[in-house]
Amino acid sequence: MPLFNRITIIGVGLIGGSLAKDIKKKKLCNKLAGFFRNKHKLNKAIREKIVDIGCSDLKESIKNSDLVILALPINHIIRTMFEIKKIADSKTIIMDVGSTKNKIAQVADKLGLNFVGTHPLAGSEKKGIDFSAERLFDNSKVIITPTKKTNKKAIRKVKTLWEKLNANVITLSPQQHDKIISFTSHLPHLVSFSLINSIPQKFLPFGASGLKDTTRIALSDAEIWSDIFLNNKELLKSLDALRKELGEMARLIKTNKRNNLIQNINKARNKRKSIE
Amino acid sequence: MPLFNRITIIGVGLIGGSLAKDIKKKKLCNKLAGFFRNKHKLNKAIREKIVDIGCSDLKESIKNSDLVILALPINHIIRTMFEIKKIADSKTIIMDVGSTKNKIAQVADKLGLNFVGTHPLAGSEKKGIDFSAERLFDNSKVIITPTKKTNKKAIRKVKTLWEKLNANVITLSPQQHDKIISFTSHLPHLVSFSLINSIPQKFLPFGASGLKDTTRIALSDAEIWSDIFLNNKELLKSLDALRKELGEMARLIKTNKRNNLIQNINKARNKRKSIE
Repeated sequence: MPLFNRITIIGVGLIGGSLAKDIKKKKLCNKLAGFFRNKHKLNKAIREKIVDIGCSDLKESIKNSDLVILALPINHIIRTMFEIKKIADSKTIIMDVGSTKNKIAQVADKLGLNFVGTHPLAGSEKKGIDFSAERLFDNSKVIITPTKKTNKKAIRKVKTLWEKLNANVITLSPQQHDKIISFTSHLPHLVSFSLINSIPQKFLPFGASGLKDTTRIALSDAEIWSDIFLNNKELLKSLDALRKELGEMARLIKTNKRNNLIQNINKARNKRKSIE
Repeated sequence: MPLFNRITIIGVGLIGGSLAKDIKKKKLCNKLAGFFRNKHKLNKAIREKIVDIGCSDLKESIKNSDLVILALPINHIIRTMFEIKKIADSKTIIMDVGSTKNKIAQVADKLGLNFVGTHPLAGSEKKGIDFSAERLFDNSKVIITPTKKTNKKAIRKVKTLWEKLNANVITLSPQQHDKIISFTSHLPHLVSFSLINSIPQKFLPFGASGLKDTTRIALSDAEIWSDIFLNNKELLKSLDALRKELGEMARLIKTNKRNNLIQNINKARNKRKSIE
């Protein structure tokens, strides 16, 4: 018997589409439904058999589903949670895959949704179903962020879902999540945007592979990332930590402190080696 | 007839070794000599036929050479220029491949060397002859930085050498070079070091591909890069530009300026797309 009877994915883009592909392939539900605002995308997803059922009506799409996955940008997740509250059966598990967790958890608790927050550390600077891929979550970390109010059985089922997708599941509080990810994902994105913005356009053709690598994620979507930044105030603390490091580098260069510079760079090298 | 009779490469590492391989393959000189401080590396280079002649005596190595290539870290380039001044024939062209150009050009002019500064925008965070590669300079940009004192014939010969290695040669003043490259290469390296140093070690395992890409160049050599930073004071201005951008991002997040954030990120995306 599959893990779920009917799953509905709301937002069948890079992450939602990749989930759809693996959920179907691994037969983790009897019926897979997708909610699409865009008719063209709905028809395409049906034609390509990415979902079994395509709906453009939210209520219709989640009817009889025992799991609803919100694979949307942060602000849309929150908006959809309010809509779902009015129409969902209280037994339906609602799960999201957003990149910030604290704000979403607060809304879920306030609304009294049967909700489990998750964040798969997978994806890319790309966007949309055309970039969705099978096995995207293989060996990737997925953080589950229950609160005191989260239903234990719902946590277990969501955890099993991710494990069946070959993810390594880690449980953190929403606050811990936002603090850690502000450093390891949100800050690198912010830096990447600011770095390329600080370089005069006419100098850019002189950039080689170093510049390209450090700014690849500056190709990421503007709305998605501004909402992530605005929904994770921990980011301001991480940014302060970075600005302090940059100030220290400036001081070492200005005062010609070669040994300290070497020390600082070697510390960076060793930290970077530890995640190679 | 080859472009040069005898070329000597001083410092047969990633860049010097790659130069050696292509110079030999394309028969750009009759004899290729290499200077090695390390006997073991000398023997290995001879055994692997990367150079025709290996020397551990500097005077011996440059004797009868019409081109000497300094493929060393910045500070070693400057030190070697002083040594070479005492022993080189004034007809011998001295060329370097260092990542900063103004300081080196000043020393060359002061010493009255027959010198042409160059900077190939190629390489990687790796170091040493084991990472040298054929065709490393194919389609890469190489900046030549003559001063008013630079011999015109020497410029032409050095330019021809790089063109025969399939590089796109661009001529800039040493000052222009240092300004541009401070933004497109030195700043990304500095940021990469500071970014990873600002992240607590225990959070690093949560880093995904975004963090890895933005900090790949933090694997670069500490002595090489501290000397680059100390030899290009333009970097402090580029760093100021970046710190201003980061301050602006902090302000937009603090004051919830969503539209301005989106605008800023879209500007970054478009700039990044222009070098894709």
